[in-house]
Amino acid sequence: MQLIESLNWRYAAKRMNGTKVPQQKIDAILQATLLSASSFGLQPYQVILIEDEALKKQLQPAAYNQPQIIEASHLMIFAAYENIAAEHIENFISLVASKRKIPVEGLADFKNVLVNSLLSRTQEANFNWSARQAYIALGTALIAAANEKVDATPMEGFNPAAFDNILGLKEKGLKSIAILAVGYRDAPADYMANTLKVRKEMEDFVINLPEKN
Amino acid sequence: MQLIESLNWRYAAKRMNGTKVPQQKIDAILQATLLSASSFGLQPYQVILIEDEALKKQLQPAAYNQPQIIEASHLMIFAAYENIAAEHIENFISLVASKRKIPVEGLADFKNVLVNSLLSRTQEANFNWSARQAYIALGTALIAAANEKVDATPMEGFNPAAFDNILGLKEKGLKSIAILAVGYRDAPADYMANTLKVRKEMEDFVINLPEKN
Repeated sequence: MQLIESLNWRYAAKRMNGTKVPQQKIDAILQATLLSASSFGLQPYQVILIEDEALKKQLQPAAYNQPQIIEASHLMIFAAYENIAAEHIENFISLVASKRKIPVEGLADFKNVLVNSLLSRTQEANFNWSARQAYIALGTALIAAANEKVDATPMEGFNPAAFDNILGLKEKGLKSIAILAVGYRDAPADYMANTLKVRKEMEDFVINLPEKN
Repeated sequence: MQLIESLNWRYAAKRMNGTKVPQQKIDAILQATLLSASSFGLQPYQVILIEDEALKKQLQPAAYNQPQIIEASHLMIFAAYENIAAEHIENFISLVASKRKIPVEGLADFKNVLVNSLLSRTQEANFNWSARQAYIALGTALIAAANEKVDATPMEGFNPAAFDNILGLKEKGLKSIAILAVGYRDAPADYMANTLKVRKEMEDFVINLPEKN
């Protein structure tokens, strides 16, 4: 599917029909998500993938009992690093060196940039930054799903602390920030399925500067 | 271009060659960006589009003199609402009613959800939320550019307050959060052009829960 077509096709389905999404399509969505742009390439977030019905049922009350939690085939929960630690930078530099087949010492300048940029900031600033990076990936995942003709509903209406507790994310240094419910729309049950997508007029979205006189 | 191919093709070009991107391709990138998913559909951000050489030169010192600012064809500056005001909600509800050809009163429940969710939060919480929404759009713009075989470098290394001042964004209730330099890579001058893209191993990116025993 072409990009504009995919973007027009997708919407945030409020009801899904429980049909399972084939593993091959889930893999394609995850692969695109993994390839998302990320500042410095650091990817300061992870994706929690849940297919298990019992776990979805356990999570549902912490998401205002929204039906997509159960009706989705899979949940992808985007979880951002709650802070950036020296260890994250060490691990990342090791990964880059290993993949590019260069010695770690060859990345000393790059590592200094990371250390100076990230370790001097507050925990809150780093978490907010990590969350923004994760939202780039969320945007990619939405497009990748539409590209596979799979519905994907981004959900912010849940209790992150309760999710983190159920999923053991705090112990992993992660905080849940958004859910992506992946499945197939139940169009007859979902009043949003045939509702017109509304976006700003282009002239209210883009500001051309300098202003033309 | 296919999505995975686009994601592999793109990288954050550090040097661009000054070639102009045709208006038709800029329009395609803006159209995709406009169609990005956004919580409630609110789109709490705008894109500042700059092609003017003098204005780019004026901005460059506030972006650590990075060459892409000048070498890019266009700059797209993502600017988030610094807060969510009642007026934003009013305008949005009017837009939705007008597009869907329904009376504003038919959206009273939806409007209440927006008011209760957004107007009760702190300015800081709303700004952080708006910035995340804008990053979904940034992710879309990156894919749309790659899809057009246009390079697009996301840049966070700049002084937002200085940009806001030069561009008059504060008066518009906006704060600049990311630059997208749109143009064409200067591969011979850019050591990153032929450097391997590194991403986490899939097993370090995705956490499958519940853990299998």
